[in-house]
Amino acid sequence: MEPLALTMGCPAGIGGELTLRAWLDRRATGPVFVALDDADRLAALAGQMGLDVPVRPVASPSQAVGVFPAALPVLPVPLAEPVVPGRPSKANAGAVVRSIELATGLALRGEAAAVVTNPINKAALYDAGFAYPGHTEFLAHLTGASGRQIMMLASPTLRVVPVTVHASLRDSIAMLSTEMIVAAARTTATALRRDFGLARPRLAMAGLNPHAGEKGALGREEATLIEPAIAVLRADGIDVSGPWPPDTMFTAKARARYDAAICMYHDQALIPLKTLDMEHGVNVTLGLPIVRTSPDHGTAYDIAGKGLAEPTSLLAALDLAAQLGVESQSARAARSGGG
Amino acid sequence: MEPLALTMGCPAGIGGELTLRAWLDRRATGPVFVALDDADRLAALAGQMGLDVPVRPVASPSQAVGVFPAALPVLPVPLAEPVVPGRPSKANAGAVVRSIELATGLALRGEAAAVVTNPINKAALYDAGFAYPGHTEFLAHLTGASGRQIMMLASPTLRVVPVTVHASLRDSIAMLSTEMIVAAARTTATALRRDFGLARPRLAMAGLNPHAGEKGALGREEATLIEPAIAVLRADGIDVSGPWPPDTMFTAKARARYDAAICMYHDQALIPLKTLDMEHGVNVTLGLPIVRTSPDHGTAYDIAGKGLAEPTSLLAALDLAAQLGVESQSARAARSGGG
Repeated sequence: MEPLALTMGCPAGIGGELTLRAWLDRRATGPVFVALDDADRLAALAGQMGLDVPVRPVASPSQAVGVFPAALPVLPVPLAEPVVPGRPSKANAGAVVRSIELATGLALRGEAAAVVTNPINKAALYDAGFAYPGHTEFLAHLTGASGRQIMMLASPTLRVVPVTVHASLRDSIAMLSTEMIVAAARTTATALRRDFGLARPRLAMAGLNPHAGEKGALGREEATLIEPAIAVLRADGIDVSGPWPPDTMFTAKARARYDAAICMYHDQALIPLKTLDMEHGVNVTLGLPIVRTSPDHGTAYDIAGKGLAEPTSLLAALDLAAQLGVESQSARAARSGGG
Repeated sequence: MEPLALTMGCPAGIGGELTLRAWLDRRATGPVFVALDDADRLAALAGQMGLDVPVRPVASPSQAVGVFPAALPVLPVPLAEPVVPGRPSKANAGAVVRSIELATGLALRGEAAAVVTNPINKAALYDAGFAYPGHTEFLAHLTGASGRQIMMLASPTLRVVPVTVHASLRDSIAMLSTEMIVAAARTTATALRRDFGLARPRLAMAGLNPHAGEKGALGREEATLIEPAIAVLRADGIDVSGPWPPDTMFTAKARARYDAAICMYHDQALIPLKTLDMEHGVNVTLGLPIVRTSPDHGTAYDIAGKGLAEPTSLLAALDLAAQLGVESQSARAARSGGG
């Protein structure tokens, strides 16, 4: 497998120290990754934090494979000014964006198996002229992705896809539509086949209301929006069950019956995921032509540079990216007749 | 402690077999309970199911203590006609209601430490002229309870109280008010002190929206409804934190910081509770002058009489009722100067 491309994220956040710690944790076992970052700042950060991490600039991801057991391989993305932990800088915003561009280009050209992104601070990037709402929209632009991208949260025990995400609960209900549900489920089924290696993925569709509406007594969206979506998906040949009462569909017994849950709103997806496993949740962007994962936390400016940040979620994101990268490459190879 | 009073529930449901199995499981250890049921039908049911349960009619709960190790004590509530499993009968509705009345009277007079209710079928009772929406309203009437009753779901790992319950998600948001939140939290705090023996209960208040509204970007109800409720409660001297982002407040680490979570809607409360522990969830009615618990399932007509019903939740309801009954009695005794 080609190395993973790991972006810098906001250099004033915890991304740098997570990158260093992730290398210490995975140097012997892999997966091999290359950091798109400023080599000097990483070396200085390792020194400040007392971490024994030799940093080695490389010219291409392919060089990273040989380097990785002995040193952290870095494809250089020079910063404009020194980093102050916890204080994002407008001058360094260009390097943050360039790291994402470079990583995406490597993945598009097959030089990297997948992209793993450290957290960015959107406000700091907006100030510097960044014109995308966030990582996902920028990646969609860079990869020329068609259609809608969606977020999957994956942990070892559960995969969830919220149909509506960053809106108030009231607005989430108001914007919910059959078309959005169908689009999210189709994208999920495609990704589970291509990237997760599941020949016939099983989707479980959540209801919106308590008891999935109890035949209309507790809400009508199951009948008016969700069941029609299920009918469309089944006509597509997608294995989808539901709508399920939301409170009983995340038990161990229920989870055994599906590969991903399609959820109607943010907390319906994220409450069970985080309640079951707070630390190993990984964000996977579905609907891109490349594999992209990210840890399920932000820049954490309050603890940046203090040696308190735990790389658990980044390690999970690297491991999942490697797994998906392999599946995705073999799926592409099979399609192009090469596998 | 006085015995617990266990109601019949709908005799066509799984209540009878759960009562028999609960006695087999608890005969040696307690808690001692007395069934308000038809002794002949229980004896016949035990025979049909091959359960070695001697059934002994008693004249009062106090007799149940001596009987319990050797036989299931039953305070007779005769049925009007034979039971057909899975088929609720209008003729037997009177006995179902009478069982609840008798159990409640025993608890009010201190002859029973608490009431534990087997599941009823509301539709069958309505047909027979029952005029209350459900168990809880009937118990409030029988006990002359003032104020609003609320439901707590309690498992060994989590206690949750939904402020809105049986309404669509859309209606739940629309009906949510500062006054409802305050009332639910006050009732919860009182019950945790009186029945759960917690001198200074800690409440965690959930937000309604993703990320608890993210300072208004993802919803305003935190600012307009929930924070004002928290201010009122704190002025009352109640220890309440929040509003918390709903997705991270049910992790093990977060749960250690509170005794009960006040939740804004049904699934916000029940998704984490059932995801963490599907089998040991117990329903506790707060705001009554007596202690009442019930298993977290329905009549399960589809499996009634087949020997498939598991008494796990009823056992948890009996155990919790015993614990709360003791605490509640000592709290009353202390208040009346007798403890």
